Amino acid sequence: MLSHRHDLMYGDIKLFTGTSCIPLAKKIAEYLKVPLCDRDIIEFPNENLFVQLKSSVRGQDCYVIQTTSRPVHRNLMELLILIQTLRLDSAARITAVIPYLCYARSDKKDQPRVPITARLIADIVEVAGADRYMMVDVHAGQIQGFFSIPGDALTAYHKLLEYLKKLKPGLTSPVVVSTDLGFAKKARNIAEVLDLPLAFVEKRRTGNDAKAEALTVIGDVQNRDVILVDDEIDTGGSMDNAIRILTKMGAKDVYVTFVHAVFSGNAAERLSASPAKRFITTDTIPIPEASKLLFGDRLVILSVADLLGEVIARANRGISVGAMFNE
Amino acid sequence: MLSHRHDLMYGDIKLFTGTSCIPLAKKIAEYLKVPLCDRDIIEFPNENLFVQLKSSVRGQDCYVIQTTSRPVHRNLMELLILIQTLRLDSAARITAVIPYLCYARSDKKDQPRVPITARLIADIVEVAGADRYMMVDVHAGQIQGFFSIPGDALTAYHKLLEYLKKLKPGLTSPVVVSTDLGFAKKARNIAEVLDLPLAFVEKRRTGNDAKAEALTVIGDVQNRDVILVDDEIDTGGSMDNAIRILTKMGAKDVYVTFVHAVFSGNAAERLSASPAKRFITTDTIPIPEASKLLFGDRLVILSVADLLGEVIARANRGISVGAMFNE
Amino acid sequence: MLSHRHDLMYGDIKLFTGTSCIPLAKKIAEYLKVPLCDRDIIEFPNENLFVQLKSSVRGQDCYVIQTTSRPVHRNLMELLILIQTLRLDSAARITAVIPYLCYARSDKKDQPRVPITARLIADIVEVAGADRYMMVDVHAGQIQGFFSIPGDALTAYHKLLEYLKKLKPGLTSPVVVSTDLGFAKKARNIAEVLDLPLAFVEKRRTGNDAKAEALTVIGDVQNRDVILVDDEIDTGGSMDNAIRILTKMGAKDVYVTFVHAVFSGNAAERLSASPAKRFITTDTIPIPEASKLLFGDRLVILSVADLLGEVIARANRGISVGAMFNE
Amino acid sequence: MLSHRHDLMYGDIKLFTGTSCIPLAKKIAEYLKVPLCDRDIIEFPNENLFVQLKSSVRGQDCYVIQTTSRPVHRNLMELLILIQTLRLDSAARITAVIPYLCYARSDKKDQPRVPITARLIADIVEVAGADRYMMVDVHAGQIQGFFSIPGDALTAYHKLLEYLKKLKPGLTSPVVVSTDLGFAKKARNIAEVLDLPLAFVEKRRTGNDAKAEALTVIGDVQNRDVILVDDEIDTGGSMDNAIRILTKMGAKDVYVTFVHAVFSGNAAERLSASPAKRFITTDTIPIPEASKLLFGDRLVILSVADLLGEVIARANRGISVGAMFNE
Amino acid sequence: MLSHRHDLMYGDIKLFTGTSCIPLAKKIAEYLKVPLCDRDIIEFPNENLFVQLKSSVRGQDCYVIQTTSRPVHRNLMELLILIQTLRLDSAARITAVIPYLCYARSDKKDQPRVPITARLIADIVEVAGADRYMMVDVHAGQIQGFFSIPGDALTAYHKLLEYLKKLKPGLTSPVVVSTDLGFAKKARNIAEVLDLPLAFVEKRRTGNDAKAEALTVIGDVQNRDVILVDDEIDTGGSMDNAIRILTKMGAKDVYVTFVHAVFSGNAAERLSASPAKRFITTDTIPIPEASKLLFGDRLVILSVADLLGEVIARANRGISVGAMFNE
Amino acid sequence: MLSHRHDLMYGDIKLFTGTSCIPLAKKIAEYLKVPLCDRDIIEFPNENLFVQLKSSVRGQDCYVIQTTSRPVHRNLMELLILIQTLRLDSAARITAVIPYLCYARSDKKDQPRVPITARLIADIVEVAGADRYMMVDVHAGQIQGFFSIPGDALTAYHKLLEYLKKLKPGLTSPVVVSTDLGFAKKARNIAEVLDLPLAFVEKRRTGNDAKAEALTVIGDVQNRDVILVDDEIDTGGSMDNAIRILTKMGAKDVYVTFVHAVFSGNAAERLSASPAKRFITTDTIPIPEASKLLFGDRLVILSVADLLGEVIARANRGISVGAMFNE
Repeated sequence: MLSHRHDLMYGDIKLFTGTSCIPLAKKIAEYLKVPLCDRDIIEFPNENLFVQLKSSVRGQDCYVIQTTSRPVHRNLMELLILIQTLRLDSAARITAVIPYLCYARSDKKDQPRVPITARLIADIVEVAGADRYMMVDVHAGQIQGFFSIPGDALTAYHKLLEYLKKLKPGLTSPVVVSTDLGFAKKARNIAEVLDLPLAFVEKRRTGNDAKAEALTVIGDVQNRDVILVDDEIDTGGSMDNAIRILTKMGAKDVYVTFVHAVFSGNAAERLSASPAKRFITTDTIPIPEASKLLFGDRLVILSVADLLGEVIARANRGISVGAMFNE
Repeated sequence: MLSHRHDLMYGDIKLFTGTSCIPLAKKIAEYLKVPLCDRDIIEFPNENLFVQLKSSVRGQDCYVIQTTSRPVHRNLMELLILIQTLRLDSAARITAVIPYLCYARSDKKDQPRVPITARLIADIVEVAGADRYMMVDVHAGQIQGFFSIPGDALTAYHKLLEYLKKLKPGLTSPVVVSTDLGFAKKARNIAEVLDLPLAFVEKRRTGNDAKAEALTVIGDVQNRDVILVDDEIDTGGSMDNAIRILTKMGAKDVYVTFVHAVFSGNAAERLSASPAKRFITTDTIPIPEASKLLFGDRLVILSVADLLGEVIARANRGISVGAMFNE
Repeated sequence: MLSHRHDLMYGDIKLFTGTSCIPLAKKIAEYLKVPLCDRDIIEFPNENLFVQLKSSVRGQDCYVIQTTSRPVHRNLMELLILIQTLRLDSAARITAVIPYLCYARSDKKDQPRVPITARLIADIVEVAGADRYMMVDVHAGQIQGFFSIPGDALTAYHKLLEYLKKLKPGLTSPVVVSTDLGFAKKARNIAEVLDLPLAFVEKRRTGNDAKAEALTVIGDVQNRDVILVDDEIDTGGSMDNAIRILTKMGAKDVYVTFVHAVFSGNAAERLSASPAKRFITTDTIPIPEASKLLFGDRLVILSVADLLGEVIARANRGISVGAMFNE
Repeated sequence: MLSHRHDLMYGDIKLFTGTSCIPLAKKIAEYLKVPLCDRDIIEFPNENLFVQLKSSVRGQDCYVIQTTSRPVHRNLMELLILIQTLRLDSAARITAVIPYLCYARSDKKDQPRVPITARLIADIVEVAGADRYMMVDVHAGQIQGFFSIPGDALTAYHKLLEYLKKLKPGLTSPVVVSTDLGFAKKARNIAEVLDLPLAFVEKRRTGNDAKAEALTVIGDVQNRDVILVDDEIDTGGSMDNAIRILTKMGAKDVYVTFVHAVFSGNAAERLSASPAKRFITTDTIPIPEASKLLFGDRLVILSVADLLGEVIARANRGISVGAMFNE
Repeated sequence: MLSHRHDLMYGDIKLFTGTSCIPLAKKIAEYLKVPLCDRDIIEFPNENLFVQLKSSVRGQDCYVIQTTSRPVHRNLMELLILIQTLRLDSAARITAVIPYLCYARSDKKDQPRVPITARLIADIVEVAGADRYMMVDVHAGQIQGFFSIPGDALTAYHKLLEYLKKLKPGLTSPVVVSTDLGFAKKARNIAEVLDLPLAFVEKRRTGNDAKAEALTVIGDVQNRDVILVDDEIDTGGSMDNAIRILTKMGAKDVYVTFVHAVFSGNAAERLSASPAKRFITTDTIPIPEASKLLFGDRLVILSVADLLGEVIARANRGISVGAMFNE
Repeated sequence: MLSHRHDLMYGDIKLFTGTSCIPLAKKIAEYLKVPLCDRDIIEFPNENLFVQLKSSVRGQDCYVIQTTSRPVHRNLMELLILIQTLRLDSAARITAVIPYLCYARSDKKDQPRVPITARLIADIVEVAGADRYMMVDVHAGQIQGFFSIPGDALTAYHKLLEYLKKLKPGLTSPVVVSTDLGFAKKARNIAEVLDLPLAFVEKRRTGNDAKAEALTVIGDVQNRDVILVDDEIDTGGSMDNAIRILTKMGAKDVYVTFVHAVFSGNAAERLSASPAKRFITTDTIPIPEASKLLFGDRLVILSVADLLGEVIARANRGISVGAMFNE
């Protein structure tokens, strides 16, 4: 009867979603066997958004599922307004469920006179009224420390690793390669779990021109299948270059593995034209059908819906999330 | 020596602007004989914005001039990021100068389960780091109370009234008419200053259909020139209908007077096709050249640059703003 | 079993009241079938107040019913001290139930160098420890935005309109008239619900003397019964003048309708001496017996006790308040 | 040139006062050779207060001198509104100068379910917008810790001791006596400075009746002149009883010394009828002329104006206050 | 069923303890029949502490039992880190249970330019994430007002008085003596409960040397057994001196009664060498075995475990603590 | 005259230091030609610290220089108390200058149910009253985002690189090696500035035993001199192992370069016994003389005093810090 007791604590789960990732929100709702709550989101001719909940959330345990991919600022504003609306309607607890957090790479002042926009995002989500947050593979673990509220910083790599573990026996002398030295430690962890060696693509500015960059590979990739890992693909430029240098250095098949398919500009065109064998990613950001068609079978999308759904269920009942991962 | 003393207090005036109202910001800079500070505002392919100040603002008195018209959410985010960047660079004082405040009409819960988005805007401007604000003819005076920080809620009606006073002697039995009963008290004040009678256009839902509305005119407009007043024109629908019912009720020339030219959708087309004689407004929102062409000479744009410039000068030197208006 | 579940969430309803509106608090307690909790409120010889709760409120859902009419500052202080006492005794949730909010007309800076005292009131109620608020027909809807905490801004006009709907068939060509242009929009809504025409009393300063005011009526009132509406009656001066100008303009019976009977100074004497036919109000402020006698049958007091009681019941159980009004 | 530099830092001194202690405020202004700033304080018929400053305080160093004696709650509200008004007018710094702090004896929960009202007072003064405070002989030194803002907790005992030092040579075997054991430590300090012995009046409940109290004297008072010390006199009951028991125990002349003349109820009548030889106090609370007449020459009022004035001058110029007392 | 209902409110009791008072925490756990929760507390070689909870506390009612005696700063940091860890793991409510609060004597600015460290302690406990606190016989009751969060400031004197009441019949003309005038009022209360007379040891600086102090006794102690009371014993110097002056003044047996056995430096050696007959104290601070041996039977340690345990039980179930003491 | 003007803004520089890094503080004072301010820091027998400033800091620009190396918690508490003392004495601005920030490696939740202690440190420094911070080479740049206050996160690598640039011409085919993959990106930047190749030491857990680790080198080090880089040396274990594996892989001379000489346990013994040629570090943490003797000439300590001194000078005068580094 323990779980029943906890049900009482925070009221019922009430799932809301903006307009940015409705398919993922629906899958989460299916996992939880709880319907998405009805709400109006209207854009007035002056672009101002208007929200109205269709039923009361007083004393309920509310979750706003909203990814902050393109259109970034509108999606962010939808999230903030939904949170404030729930708060003003006296929700018992509000959790911002943000599968992909915008501005996460603006997380430190590595030059003078620049913002730390990720902290700004944390601040405005809190001031809108969120009591907790959930995020998936946020760019740097430290971003959790930008929030004053508690939350769950989850990783989809559990899912990706399951897939890679099945893939591994069919690969030739596989090696894990990181495209970005900022991702080196996470790449090491992935290599460790897969029990594979590790290599790096290093990018370095050359000469006086800040934009000219030379790539080198540190470590051994020749005649090896490569599992190329990163947290997200934005324009695809770095990834495309990495695939090319690896191929040039004698690598065999390249399996590109990443959590967030940001796919800005012509990323889908560019990457689908590259010699990589497969692209393994998740649905934290919805990928347009047109882009999917470009990749065809080479694109594997693993859903984070059951991950988020299970964490929501546990958060509502007050039971351990760490235990999901034997932690 | 007094003004010299106050100069010292807050450091030099440093003017910044986002991308939403550069022409107005330039005029303010000219008024103040102070250059706009150089800064980069870059939009990355993933739509995330990046800001970098080109010189230090430590200990300076900074003003961010940014209107929040279309694109509303990007403009708002530019404002927030600029404020945070100034704060993190240890500015002495930061004033958000917002000629037109978005979401100002979302200022109360007049239905259940809706947001008060104007309060949310105030909250996020504050949490970003603004120490003060300046706004022009914000929809309801009470919005000042949404901020915890002090500020100046200015009115451009001083400018519009100067214009109308010059116009009045040439008008036939003029009457001030308000299109919106929410604007009734301000319309009364305008009529009082101009020493003119007052009338109202009343809008009322008819039958069961929430969208069907009937207009009536309360007060006398027949054979009179009409000064039709409101704070902003959005889609222009209400204003267009008001012009038509007034014409139908026997009004003569109609002079449409408003502060904020939001001009959503086809507002410019619609209004320029109406029988109104003149449209008198300000530059709190930049009006596209194409729209200006539609109106031709019928559109009069009075600048608020000297108003904002003078208030900035006084805020910096710590002298009275009220005294500008003999208050 | 749903309502049972919600009962658990916030603990039991605990009703407290200061000394400002004990009869209303008792009626609310009767409606809820919950006793008023016992507490001492002592005024020491030095005017300092002392409060002691007679039993523990740990983990309970507490409501402090206190109107802030005369003596305004003592009543306000009782409210603040009661809230802090409940907080320090570890109440689970504290709701300030304020049938009439003092200082609500000080809600904007319409002159330079003046306070926004209504915001100050919101701030001090929050800092004392209130988690939620309830108010009835607060002067401007925007005052909700002065609070950072959620709350219910209720209207007694549902009650007053029920009464007026019954009255309407017996009236002669009735018209709704607003005495204050700041109340114009609400008057329009009332007229719309009653399906009646609308007119206005306009007050305007004349000549150089700031105090000399002239009244005019905009709209048609001749040979009509008038439903004269406003949110409160303070000194009764404006209302008395409005009744007289309406009578002078040919109006027939005048039904004065308002929520808050502030009745400062000789308001009761003055109004009871006016030719108005009936005064319809509520018990958000207790009306002294002597004043009631002056009006006799002409004074109709509708109680808001069941309104507040039902909202408290719903807030405690976490169910919709909007649904009470088919919203 | 040092003091000139500091002058610049916080702007000019701007002195404001409510209506509670205008004579003291005037004396402070005289000491500082700075005029009291003009402001309106109006009480509307509904008891709501209204404040308007007559000139701008932007960027100035403002001091609100307001004691919180009777009428306590109105005086407190005046203080809060004045502070908020200064803040909204963008004062550079606001100091609440409170010669006598109301509710200071409600400083701990010595019973269950009671408030700590002194903390509430600190909270609301801060939330209104005070940046600093000044207080004189607040009941317990710990009350400084109730404020999050810095401040100066001053003592008028420096003044009273100067007087007593002059008195001492003419006294017979004088002894310092404390009427309240909560004042024992301060009484010891006074005795130490005067190099006199110490005794106590102890009050103890007797039997089952909580109100019946017996007084005893601990220490030697026979044939001695007594300097009877406390921080304030409220109703005068304890002090009157102390005088009587001391007389009964053989004490000779009694000199009653205290900072705050609260004088509630018939305190002045009661004490002036007692056999005490002299009453030595200050002007932190204005004493009515009628009360002064009752005491005649037996009442000595020492002004704290130069103490507060000098501390204001030093706070404005950023120089040490402790140095005033060789600390 | 009432108590069952309240169980639900805050989740289960989860008891945690740092390393400062494990024996007391175990006794509290035994009283409550609830196990201490498992957690790692590791000190890295660089002295940084690391904490990991061994199971989830989501939605639970957590209590961190940690006294802040020596090593003071490490124990304080353990407390803060434990609180933050519980908060980040989404505990429903966190109570800091601090049997002995460090820095409680730094509670006011009695000299210029000194800290109020007790307020700092309150601030950092709150910012770490505590929702409530429990403390035993904190130096000054006003320290409760330093916290913004509610809490229980308990007293162990109920326990000590039980012991003294049993002792009293065997004593010779007993008198209660306070060693510190700051403790005078509490000593009076103790004397009143025991129905005994009261006396004081007064400490006064002599001559120009700040360190030279003379002791005197105010009140009658000759041929009497003495109950010497204070809140804590630190170095034992004052207490030792008090015992000696009392003996010199003809007192008979001395029973030293105090709550907190801080026992700094050689306090145990010094006091055990004094002529006092018995030392009656509690276990708010663990006393080293070596010190206990020095005192032998003369040391009586009464446990506060059942006091704290019962208050935790009542806090969890939301029932009155005051009622434990018939308050 | 510009710099003179800014001098006025924040008052004079007032430098304070705790007891953790007095030699560095003295060097900073020499650089600034400003004396360290006198203050008492006393440890009472009960370990509680007491601080008293010897002169007033009202309106001054105060800097507290305090590193948070061993004894970590006492040093941290000194910092907090100094900040609060300055705040309560009405300092105009307080900057916490923390050359080495403790707990910086506890910056994310990389396991469930652990703290983010670096955020806690930021929170308590802020709540104590710091207005700004300065830190040197804090473990992760994101820690800046843990603070709500602005600050300067400086790097001593400018100094270390100057040294390495002079060293480079004498080295044999040098390569930059990172011992920790979390430092990979910073190592890349160092290699880029020195125009040298890059390699990595990878540490990986082996088998089931969490403690067994195997080291490998990724990249080419054979017959090369190695510049081994990291941000700090704690126990020296990883560094020692890295030196050994590099030597084993054929590296020639090893130059160990790091900012913070934490040197826990027997780190100095262990490292001085290793075959590394030189140890290049800074004085952010004072190194004991005994440790220095062990290294002899192999230890090079570059001072950060002029770096911190210059940044303090610029912060005080409100001029650019970025400009120091041509940024």
